[in-house]
Parts: sequence; structure tokens; C-alpha cells
Amino acid sequence: MSDAEWIFKAVRNIEQDDFVLAQQHQDLLTKPQGSLGRLEDIAVRLCAMQQKMAPEVKNIQITVFAADHGVAEEAVSAFPQAVTLEMVRNFSRGGAAISVLARQLEAELEVVNVGTAGEAENMMGVLDQRIAPATQNFSRQVAMSESQLQEALAVGREAVERALKRSTQLFIGGDMGIGNTTSATAIACVLLDEQPASLAGPGTGLDAKGISHKVSIIARGLLLHKNTMPMPVDVLRCVGGFEIAALTGAYIACAQKGLPVVVDGFISSVAALVAIKINPQVKEWMFFSHVSAEPGHLIIIQAMEAQPLIALNMRLGEASGAATVVPLMRLACALHNDMATFEQAGVSNKDG
Amino acid sequence: MSDAEWIFKAVRNIEQDDFVLAQQHQDLLTKPQGSLGRLEDIAVRLCAMQQKMAPEVKNIQITVFAADHGVAEEAVSAFPQAVTLEMVRNFSRGGAAISVLARQLEAELEVVNVGTAGEAENMMGVLDQRIAPATQNFSRQVAMSESQLQEALAVGREAVERALKRSTQLFIGGDMGIGNTTSATAIACVLLDEQPASLAGPGTGLDAKGISHKVSIIARGLLLHKNTMPMPVDVLRCVGGFEIAALTGAYIACAQKGLPVVVDGFISSVAALVAIKINPQVKEWMFFSHVSAEPGHLIIIQAMEAQPLIALNMRLGEASGAATVVPLMRLACALHNDMATFEQAGVSNKDG
Repeated sequence: MSDAEWIFKAVRNIEQDDFVLAQQHQDLLTKPQGSLGRLEDIAVRLCAMQQKMAPEVKNIQITVFAADHGVAEEAVSAFPQAVTLEMVRNFSRGGAAISVLARQLEAELEVVNVGTAGEAENMMGVLDQRIAPATQNFSRQVAMSESQLQEALAVGREAVERALKRSTQLFIGGDMGIGNTTSATAIACVLLDEQPASLAGPGTGLDAKGISHKVSIIARGLLLHKNTMPMPVDVLRCVGGFEIAALTGAYIACAQKGLPVVVDGFISSVAALVAIKINPQVKEWMFFSHVSAEPGHLIIIQAMEAQPLIALNMRLGEASGAATVVPLMRLACALHNDMATFEQAGVSNKDG
Repeated sequence: MSDAEWIFKAVRNIEQDDFVLAQQHQDLLTKPQGSLGRLEDIAVRLCAMQQKMAPEVKNIQITVFAADHGVAEEAVSAFPQAVTLEMVRNFSRGGAAISVLARQLEAELEVVNVGTAGEAENMMGVLDQRIAPATQNFSRQVAMSESQLQEALAVGREAVERALKRSTQLFIGGDMGIGNTTSATAIACVLLDEQPASLAGPGTGLDAKGISHKVSIIARGLLLHKNTMPMPVDVLRCVGGFEIAALTGAYIACAQKGLPVVVDGFISSVAALVAIKINPQVKEWMFFSHVSAEPGHLIIIQAMEAQPLIALNMRLGEASGAATVVPLMRLACALHNDMATFEQAGVSNKDG
């Protein structure tokens, strides 16, 4: 197969028997069956994914993909485009939300610059993989070329390859890019056959008038490209962003390599949606972290039949929502691994 | 005031100015305002409760109150009564869910035996404060005497006093007691003017027939006591349990002493409801952890206008749901304390 075909390659299979074995262990633990709720599901899924009966979530890799968007020139964001690169600096210096969260989780944080506008100096912890200074403005032309799309998808795959070399047990992707809710909303509209007004939201803080303008810009882009997006990858190419494509590539690569993923919020969920549309079994390797405050997120989550763990009204991106659920996954593992069974504890069971 | 009046004493005041100061700091951090959602609220509330601008959640005290219920003789639980004491042993030996969670959180776990049936040996980490071998069967007589009620409330207050001596920053109460969803449901029915059928659920695992029987037992108790429960404390006395009364006393004492509380699931929420009905300002010191799978829990949560942080279908009690949200609170503190401001990071703000 050609290079461009890698995204369609089969994902790693998860043995059904391993779910059953893990669930059998859960059911021996000193609690009414099922009473730890979704913490049980997390542990059981991790057992099957990791093919071991004592799952763990160590060596977490958090990769934030940063890129600029041509469509930002249409005034679709509450913040200026310069913020993308300024935030990359903030990640590098350790002052951003995801910097703080990564330290708390003892996770490896890397930032990949897939294409920011302006002068970017070398920065600690930031990989320079710029494809272009930004995508093109999708409301007026195609966002990226076919070769740029392939490059962006490969940037995601390469991040997963680096993570595997570090024996990562969980991959978290994040996004930074002023204007990227506009691009992500456009993608979701096409893939879910929704109108821009149903999915567009305030992003970093637009008011009602700003949202209305954003809707019109998205609608113009969708009209322009409507006959040239037969496949999900075409949607990514015509209205997507470099960081969204990189996330899509990363999610597909994780599933192919057998590395569990935690999906973050709105942007990441759209990348997950594209990945699932391209290669449906990718979903088996995903945990969904949260329902964001961006109103379209819930629709996208429901379309994927995903079950996020928390809903704390977060709407920051940067992988911050995904990072927030990691401690819950660690508690789920500890409970699975360390609780006594009814027999060990001499506790009478329901039928006893 | 007499000893019995302590529960009505004013709670520690929280300065409104401290909320404002803490929120002002949040709004300087490098993120769109409000984009960390409820993690911001947690940090801001903790700032005001702790009267410091860098909140923290260390030295957590988890106290599980265990007691038996006379009403268990009516076959209202899926598990035999012996399980209460067997689980106390399991807590002591470190094999229960809350044992595992406490270790993960580096929290102090203590178990208080407020009245279990059967022979109880001395156990490590278990305080013997037994009031009686169980409450009386409330479907046939008053569950406890006035002096037993006062003793149980004081057991809760004393746990908080011990916690404060250890410089505890967060108090978590939990419950263990076969039959206690029956007692808690009866309490909630009176305080919320609901029918048993609206609030009764499977508890540890009753089937539909078992729930229907449980409803009839609760209804019989409520009919028996309906003219002798003018005040919330009377409800606790007539149909309550020792561990529920201890939790109520603990919550009131925390608010009076200015110690933040995390409320667990169904049983704990009913104790919180009683505490709030007795002394409404107690609620200001509470964080609500989760919506449990016990169907009546959501009704009780809504009646208190509480906003739990997670909903993971847990239904174990033992403080397990409350313990599960502690890492989220810790992340909220770290974000508040360690993120860079726009000025520090040289990031353009929304209006910049």
C-alpha cells in the first residue's frame, strides 16, 4: 500500500476473553457487583487493552499539537492569532494549564508545532514540525494540500512512535490553535450532516454576534467545498487544521499499535470522529474524558456513542480535560489490583 | 445551651471578599476566563474556606461510621447483617475499596464502630464507640432513644475534633451498615415529603420484588411514627441509624469549626440533608462528590440544590465516591496556584 493508505490499516485486536477474565476478577472483590460503576469498566477495559490482569497507567505521554488557521483572518476568535505561538511559549516555560496538569500527573509533556504564524524561536520541549505558517483560509480556498494533509497525519503517527519508545501506557493528545473551533465545527458539520448553527459555539469567548458571524464563515466554506469532500480525509484537507489532522493521525496510530488513548474536548473529539469515520475500530482504543462547555461537543459525543467520564464545564483544550480524568483511571486500576476478594476477607457474599 | 443544642449553633462564616479575591486571581491566569469550569469554582471556594490564596488539600481525614439496623430483620437487604462487621474487619485489614482509595490519596482512614451486631474484637484503625448492637427495627418501634441520638451525633462531632488535631484540611465521612438505605430512604421521605416508592432503590442489589417489599416496610415505619417527628432530629431518632446520625453530627461540626467537607453518596447525602435542615448554613462548607446509581439519590441532591462533581454510576458507600473526587480537587488547587498569569507569560489577552 502507498504511504497515504496507512490510516486504513487494521487496528490491534482486543481479545474478548480478556474482558471476561477481568470482569470475573472484579466480581470477586468485596463490594456489591457493579457498585464501583464506571471505575470497574475502566479497569476491565485497561486489562484487556494491556493484556494483563493488573492494569496500570504510568508513563503517560501528553502531546499538544499547535497550529494556526488561515480562517482566523475572518475574525472568528475572541483572541488574536499571536496567542497560538505565545501559548506554545507558555507550554514550554511550564505556565499553562496543561503544564501544571502534566507535572501533577508526572506525565511527559511534549508540544509539536505543526504550523504557527510568526517567528518561532527554538523552545525547550517543543518540536518544530511546521508544515506551513498556517492553513489557508478555508472559507475562501482549500485549507491544505494533499501532501500537507499526509504530512500532518504523519506528524501524529510519529508522536505515537516516540511515545512507544518511552514505554508509554496512555496517550493523550491536545490542541492549541486560535480559530480551531471554527475548523473543527466545519468538519463535524460535514461528517454529521449538521448545520453550522447547530454546532458552532463561543470557543474561547465569542458573544452571540460573534457566533453568528462564525456560523456564516463556516457556511461559506462548506458551500465552497461541498462537491470536493467525498471522503472523511477530504473534509480534513478542505476545512481542517494541521493540529486536527495530527490528532487524527495520532489516534489511528495508537489503535494500530495498541496504545490506549484519552480523548480531550471539542477539537480532539472532532479529530476522534474523523479517525473513527476513516477506521471505525479506532474507537475501541479510546477513553472519552469529558463533555465540554462548547455546546456542539455533546452532539459530537453522542454521534460517536461515546461515554465521557466527567462534565465539569471545561472548555480550554490543550488536553486539559483528558489530563483531568487520569487520576480517576489510576484509582480504577488501584481498586482492581488491590482490593480483597470476598474469600480473602472472609466477607459473606450476596448469596452467602 | 444544653448539650443537645450544639447542632443549632452558628457555622463559621465564609468571607464574600475572599471569593472575589480568589476569582480575580483565576481571571489573570493564561486561559479564557471560566474555561477550567468547575475546577475554578473548587479552587475559589477552597481559597475562601481556607482563607488563603493558595488552597491545598492535604492531610485528608476519612472517617467511616459503621452500624447495624434493626430493620435488617425485615429482609430489606441483599446481604446478611453479618456483613457490616465483616466489612469493618476488611477496612481494618486494608482490603476494602475505601482502604485502597485512602492509601492512594495518602489520607488518614479511621473507622468508628457506632453499633454493630455480634462479637467485635479489637481491630487496628477501628474505634469502638458502640451505642447498642444495632438500632431498633423502625418499622415496629422507635429506632433509637433521645440519649442514643445525642450520643451518635456526638460521635460524629468527636471525629471532627480528632481530625482538627491532625491539621486536617478536608473531612470525608462514609457509611457502612446493612439495611442503611432503608433507613436513609425513610428519613428522606419525611424531610422531602416524598413517597417511599419514589425514593427506594436496590441498595446493594435487591430485585424488583425486594424493592417493593422494602417500600412496604418503609411505609409501615412512616405510618407508625408520623405524629412523633415534628423536627428533623426527631426523624433521625425515629427512623434513622447510628452511622447516619454520626455523619449528620460530623457535617454540622465541620461547618462550625470551618473544615471543608466532601459528601459521599446516598446515605451521606441523606445525612447532609438532615444537617442542612437542622442548620442550613452547613451547606456552605460542603462539596458534593457524585450522583450515585441509587435512583433516589438524584432527587435528594436536587432538593439540596447541590452540584455533584461526577456521575460514574457508583453505589458503594464507604466514602468511596467522595474519595474519588479528591484528585480533581487537588488538580484544581494546583492549577490555581501554579499557572502563569497573562502578564507573567507575555500572552495577549482577549482584549489585548
